[in-house]
Amino acid sequence: MLAERMRRVRASPIMELIKTTSGGNYLSFASGLPDPALFPLEELRSVTDEVLRTDGVGALQYGAAEGYAPLRQSVAAILRRRGLQATADHVLITTGSQQALDLAARALLNPGDRVIVESPTYLAALQVLESLEAEYRVVPMDADGMRSDALTPSVLNGSRLLYTLPNFQNPSGATMTLQRRREVAGKAAAAGVPVLEDDAYHDLRYEGEALPPVAALAENAHAIYTGTFSKVIAPGVRVGYLWAQPALVERLAQLKQITDLHAGSLTQRVVQAYLQAGHLEPGLERFRTAYARRRDVMLAALETHCSPWLTWNRPAGGMFIFARIKPRAAGTPLDAADLLARAMERGLVFVPGAAFHPDGSGSDTLRLNFVSAPEERIEAGIRILSEVLHEWS
Amino acid sequence: MLAERMRRVRASPIMELIKTTSGGNYLSFASGLPDPALFPLEELRSVTDEVLRTDGVGALQYGAAEGYAPLRQSVAAILRRRGLQATADHVLITTGSQQALDLAARALLNPGDRVIVESPTYLAALQVLESLEAEYRVVPMDADGMRSDALTPSVLNGSRLLYTLPNFQNPSGATMTLQRRREVAGKAAAAGVPVLEDDAYHDLRYEGEALPPVAALAENAHAIYTGTFSKVIAPGVRVGYLWAQPALVERLAQLKQITDLHAGSLTQRVVQAYLQAGHLEPGLERFRTAYARRRDVMLAALETHCSPWLTWNRPAGGMFIFARIKPRAAGTPLDAADLLARAMERGLVFVPGAAFHPDGSGSDTLRLNFVSAPEERIEAGIRILSEVLHEWS
Repeated sequence: MLAERMRRVRASPIMELIKTTSGGNYLSFASGLPDPALFPLEELRSVTDEVLRTDGVGALQYGAAEGYAPLRQSVAAILRRRGLQATADHVLITTGSQQALDLAARALLNPGDRVIVESPTYLAALQVLESLEAEYRVVPMDADGMRSDALTPSVLNGSRLLYTLPNFQNPSGATMTLQRRREVAGKAAAAGVPVLEDDAYHDLRYEGEALPPVAALAENAHAIYTGTFSKVIAPGVRVGYLWAQPALVERLAQLKQITDLHAGSLTQRVVQAYLQAGHLEPGLERFRTAYARRRDVMLAALETHCSPWLTWNRPAGGMFIFARIKPRAAGTPLDAADLLARAMERGLVFVPGAAFHPDGSGSDTLRLNFVSAPEERIEAGIRILSEVLHEWS
Repeated sequence: MLAERMRRVRASPIMELIKTTSGGNYLSFASGLPDPALFPLEELRSVTDEVLRTDGVGALQYGAAEGYAPLRQSVAAILRRRGLQATADHVLITTGSQQALDLAARALLNPGDRVIVESPTYLAALQVLESLEAEYRVVPMDADGMRSDALTPSVLNGSRLLYTLPNFQNPSGATMTLQRRREVAGKAAAAGVPVLEDDAYHDLRYEGEALPPVAALAENAHAIYTGTFSKVIAPGVRVGYLWAQPALVERLAQLKQITDLHAGSLTQRVVQAYLQAGHLEPGLERFRTAYARRRDVMLAALETHCSPWLTWNRPAGGMFIFARIKPRAAGTPLDAADLLARAMERGLVFVPGAAFHPDGSGSDTLRLNFVSAPEERIEAGIRILSEVLHEWS
């Protein structure tokens, strides 16, 4: 009885893993959850009460599909600092950036349309594309991000969307170089392929200078750039945003209205009040300081304990280290799903990387979240991983 | 460049009307907005602070796609009192009931699928169906709701969904009788057509006994029932819900996760704390008392001022009176859109009814919201309407 699109709608293997392990006493490198100890709880309590005290009616009434006007302006200011030409009319406030991806893809894709995706890439974006019955043109990643040389005419021509996550990509942790960004932006624009740029982790940079968005590097009338306050304030408020040309924002707002009328009136005002009160930067600094240290702890632990069996990257930001199991000289290749089963027996969870690979590869990869666990447990977790690898390989 | 579905995605004429008139000093019978003076602001301030004080981490962290477990239980209890067999597993918490309609339709409809709709019907549901490229089988309404005798085999067979709004329908104000509910439920179930029942106004009943949901009156494995806290607490929190069989809820939750991960963690807990604190009933009583009086004021004013030109219904609940312009003996038929243009010159806004009619009829109808304006202004507004009608007809 279900619609055709539901054939490709499935539970997220990560969500299933989190559900399976949520009862037990696991040390988890699996989730994409921020560390709740770092949430700016007192600041949010204070601005929430202020909003209800001073603008209760606005916070509780229906609102415009496009979003709360002052917040659209604040987001535009944030995006200008990132290098995008942005006014409030370029901004649509969404129910988290997941919705921004969903709206963008629904507005642009017919069933069977070809979408250029990185491999590996963000699982929940693949789920959006699956639900829209998209076909993939898979472009490999390396340490410098999407391989722009793989954007050949045969990949570009006939494609209807190019999805990229250029900063501290989930899951690979890779950041696309400026040179590559220019090439990707230029090639997509020249071929008339809209870019859908997912920049959820932009402000979680622990080293180096911020790079301009791909969407800022070429004129591409249907380019859409998405971001979120989930990683820099808190995900529970469900406030994200997208940037596009105003004519496209208007169309996306119509779709947004159909989907859920508008983002929460209360939570949009809470985010706006939080920004107005100047809480964003100090809060970000807390996230960055803690997460950068945890990244370094995990990198050092991997170096100490896992070098014989794994290779991995050093992400400049974000939440994830992506590791690969070294090939064995003989015998069956090692599969990260088997590794997980063994790790779980010892109380450790991570995400096997296959699900992130739209081309079916990646069974030898694993994603390690370095932000959820406190520093002192990260070393312990990596030691468990090394013990399992040692016994197993 | 946009997807095929976007051809049928348009701005809501109501939203456009509200935007056009929002700057001016209009007396509005146009919106579907609750009266913000009745929002339980102090109660919400108190429970919101309690939530952030006692469950700040839960309120700010990511959550399950299905919704916050205690709220799912509370909603199940509410639905059992309405006559539905419901456990928490039957409930999906949504970002307002608009999203419940969107998820239900996305899960069930392929492009070109036939959907049975009432005429007139809820505009934003039609917008959802348009975005899914549905075709309509239109069933007329009368004072007793959907005309169940019009559910003939030729209407039912081959249809993939039956959408109905049985209580105080938006826009008609009609309530479906128990007899009709039984017939609609039975015929849809026998023909294997899933019912999508929109019960957004359930608790805004001002007279008579509550009637059981259509979804409770026949076994229909794919029936989906939707509701919301927007009308009984406040719309700005964006918390709605749907009921379906657990297997279908599971599938809808997968789609929900793709769409926006989950409903707001904070706002779900705020609603749950509000329910737990026992605020719902007293708040509802305030809404009902005020709205019932306004309905009566509007009905009396219509009787006093508009009888020569209009006929209208007496809704047992909800927010809307639906009026029809009496036919003229000669000359062109009167069009409510022309009437609106004249009314706006005198500072009054309402919604012409044509947009609610999927069959293109209804140009002689108008929807009058009786809950947004205070009592003392309702009479003044109806007098303006009568003056315009008098001059014009």
